[in-house]
Amino acid sequence: MNPKKERMYFRKEEKKGTTSGLCDKYIQTNLVTLPKAYAFDFLLFCMRNPKPCPIVEVMEPGQTTPKVADADIRTDLPRYRIYRNGEFTEEVFNLTEVWQDDFVTFLIGCSFTFEKALLDGGIPLLHQQQEKVVPMFNTTIPLETAGVFSGNMVVSMRPVPNHLVEQALDISHRFELSHGSPVHIGSPEDIGITNVQNPDYGEPVTFNSSETTPVFWACGVTPQNAALQAKPSIMITHAPGHMLITDELDSNYSNS
Amino acid sequence: MNPKKERMYFRKEEKKGTTSGLCDKYIQTNLVTLPKAYAFDFLLFCMRNPKPCPIVEVMEPGQTTPKVADADIRTDLPRYRIYRNGEFTEEVFNLTEVWQDDFVTFLIGCSFTFEKALLDGGIPLLHQQQEKVVPMFNTTIPLETAGVFSGNMVVSMRPVPNHLVEQALDISHRFELSHGSPVHIGSPEDIGITNVQNPDYGEPVTFNSSETTPVFWACGVTPQNAALQAKPSIMITHAPGHMLITDELDSNYSNS
Repeated sequence: MNPKKERMYFRKEEKKGTTSGLCDKYIQTNLVTLPKAYAFDFLLFCMRNPKPCPIVEVMEPGQTTPKVADADIRTDLPRYRIYRNGEFTEEVFNLTEVWQDDFVTFLIGCSFTFEKALLDGGIPLLHQQQEKVVPMFNTTIPLETAGVFSGNMVVSMRPVPNHLVEQALDISHRFELSHGSPVHIGSPEDIGITNVQNPDYGEPVTFNSSETTPVFWACGVTPQNAALQAKPSIMITHAPGHMLITDELDSNYSNS
Repeated sequence: MNPKKERMYFRKEEKKGTTSGLCDKYIQTNLVTLPKAYAFDFLLFCMRNPKPCPIVEVMEPGQTTPKVADADIRTDLPRYRIYRNGEFTEEVFNLTEVWQDDFVTFLIGCSFTFEKALLDGGIPLLHQQQEKVVPMFNTTIPLETAGVFSGNMVVSMRPVPNHLVEQALDISHRFELSHGSPVHIGSPEDIGITNVQNPDYGEPVTFNSSETTPVFWACGVTPQNAALQAKPSIMITHAPGHMLITDELDSNYSNS
């Protein structure tokens, strides 16, 4: 599958669905767009919290074509969400009408890259097998504050067979721009998660064996969450699961 | 030597000299202070050009105590330079009178750290032996632009005996926050340097053997240079050679 072709479907609104599983040799990114007045604080927030907010690219104010994709970020994602003063107000298929010349766009690594590597490495992904959105949780893990941005880390959870935990660590560790190694293993209560079957975002996943450990990775919902708490006048993100497909091969984004 | 004690001498203006060779177990940093209006562009410029501009810390607007040192950055460096609209206007011993609440301070890695490691690794440093300021050159190596900041890289040059070049690479490579591995080896003309005995900054160094190669590292003067070309209303830097001595052990800043 060709990233440019997929993006053109989204631009023409001939496709509007999730990018999960599309063009799986290429990295996909989260998108956060904010007015320039918030850009320094947000960039610093991402730099100080690289596990949940790994920066793939920061675009100049008003710029619409990133380096990582021959794309127009106003039109080439399938769906966007607009938040005003910290409240979700609308979901749209393009940003043509809301675009401002002072908008700064941050492209942030997403977990699709390491998920594919986990699968290739023989680690089963139960949420995919069960056709669920990966379960995500608010935690008590504090983030480094930067200006108006602060909060706790959001994590995603994947149950991993005990004998494969070490291997899952080794694999995800190589993908620093895709959240890297886990932030926590086992004992959900240690990071403030009271019930692993009751996620704050996404859907619960059934553990298929007692020989399975919940493994927690830093999650790309974290920066959105922090940004919403900061209540910027306007903020735009991709809709969950509806990412930017880049032209960058994921093989170039691994440390190995 | 104790960093806090040295800094207190500078604060009280009981000492005003270079920090070269002081507290050599601790890292020293370059300082760049700019009004917040320039901070996003400058931070992005540093991120896009990590070799000449390795970020050790970015401080919040108006903040005066960094994380890397129990210091007041307005008083605890021996000398500062103030530039207005891209012109050097004064050298001062403290920033008490010019300080603004919207000032953002960037602490940027300096070459003292890898120079000490080179010496420890048996690489002679001719500029030190000859008691010269390391020679620095403008080059034709283009930088990534970010907002108003752009330009070419400034490099420092150290002559290295041919049989030790490989080792100098290996050593400096480990200090990413101190400019890392060289950007160029030999052939000065390839990067626009016509006469290696005629530096743009610092002083010329006499090569003591024909079996010596000029080795070029990215230099901390680069961000100052780029900032001056951008002509910010006000910009403050340390005076050359008069750095912030931090409380961070240099052993923590190596990748090895």
